[in-house]
Amino acid sequence: MKNIPDFVLVRPQMGENIGAAARAMLNFGLDRMSVVAPRDGWPNERAVAMASGAGRVLDGARLSATTAEAVADCAMVFATTARDRDLTKPVYSPEAAMIEARDRIARGERVAILFGPERTGLENDDVARANAIVSVPTNPDFPSLNLAQCVLLMGYEWRRAIAAPAAQTMEMAGTDFANHAELEALAAHYEERLDTAGFFFPEGKAPAMKRHLRNLWSRMPLTRADVQTFHGMMRQMVRWKERG
Amino acid sequence: MKNIPDFVLVRPQMGENIGAAARAMLNFGLDRMSVVAPRDGWPNERAVAMASGAGRVLDGARLSATTAEAVADCAMVFATTARDRDLTKPVYSPEAAMIEARDRIARGERVAILFGPERTGLENDDVARANAIVSVPTNPDFPSLNLAQCVLLMGYEWRRAIAAPAAQTMEMAGTDFANHAELEALAAHYEERLDTAGFFFPEGKAPAMKRHLRNLWSRMPLTRADVQTFHGMMRQMVRWKERG
Repeated sequence: MKNIPDFVLVRPQMGENIGAAARAMLNFGLDRMSVVAPRDGWPNERAVAMASGAGRVLDGARLSATTAEAVADCAMVFATTARDRDLTKPVYSPEAAMIEARDRIARGERVAILFGPERTGLENDDVARANAIVSVPTNPDFPSLNLAQCVLLMGYEWRRAIAAPAAQTMEMAGTDFANHAELEALAAHYEERLDTAGFFFPEGKAPAMKRHLRNLWSRMPLTRADVQTFHGMMRQMVRWKERG
Repeated sequence: MKNIPDFVLVRPQMGENIGAAARAMLNFGLDRMSVVAPRDGWPNERAVAMASGAGRVLDGARLSATTAEAVADCAMVFATTARDRDLTKPVYSPEAAMIEARDRIARGERVAILFGPERTGLENDDVARANAIVSVPTNPDFPSLNLAQCVLLMGYEWRRAIAAPAAQTMEMAGTDFANHAELEALAAHYEERLDTAGFFFPEGKAPAMKRHLRNLWSRMPLTRADVQTFHGMMRQMVRWKERG
């Protein structure tokens, strides 16, 4: 068994949406699709056309007649819903749901996420069959997501859940930042040339101006290459002057 | 000013995608759209048809001829990109980017997110103009997201960011950072003077050298005072030369 959840499309209507859902799944490395009673039969040509590079997700999809059959061997079933339901169920955010899914799958359990048909969404019978609800925090005045968008967000949260806990910001990974000696040399180079050019004027303000400039260089996140660029600019201005 | 970021669609091609992007924005309460040089002109009927309930996002969209114009008054610009770029820039996850956006907007700064055209994505010149890159952690074997999907994920993370508790005290709070028009003017000033001085040599390498330099300026966290200092240094070098 692959260590990923099943994404179960319940009674999907338009083939295009099934194809777009396949693409959205594969964008986040998911390829276990289940299709329950698709309106237009199976396989679906329009789904295949829309899926383009993600056709293999459709090829490998499991076809079931009922939601119950599709989730028969699952330990945990989440139902995605936009509307509030009159059902007493735990409600998860997409993030919390995918963290739970990850942890259960790591323990060898099988997890499914149910996605309802376009327009109507899941029926109460489907939701009742789920262990929990997943609700995407949309704008209450404009809440409706289409099928592939809902799949995309859940896939995105799956990918986030399995990513290493480290590194939210990968601040210029592998960047070769200048060290302090290099910054010092750059500051000294500019200070010397600007002094010659008469920049630090009037004399009484010179120390404060020099301090300000050193502070500026030290505050900038300069790479080694940046430092060379700044050296080069100043050298060129001096050469230009010396050519007269 | 509304306390939300600008979503800037750069040279979008199909009207349907612009409409779908408007819907995705409004799903997460965002309605500040900017459109830069849309291929099929503006307004766009197909965009309006696709947006349906989100038509007001299109009605309120700002139209610009260039990316520079669209982000002129922004303190922080993020470029969404799928491919790796040969540019030294901080790379943010969508989550980290929207947390940063939320904190800056709370301080009264204006923040923009750039989305590139379908297929090609942002050009290097657009990316060079941004302060940072946002990269969605997709499946490396099937990475491509469409425009509306990329907008959807950023909108989703915005919604998550504003639901989360506010940030701790920020370093350099109250600092008056330069906006993009000011950085643009600084970059142009240096480019012009260095060109005169013969810095961009050999000619064949000049475009890449200029892009590298623009990228350098846009990456630096420059305050208004820093920008004046850099202008002053260059002016002084020119005066020195002219005194002969």
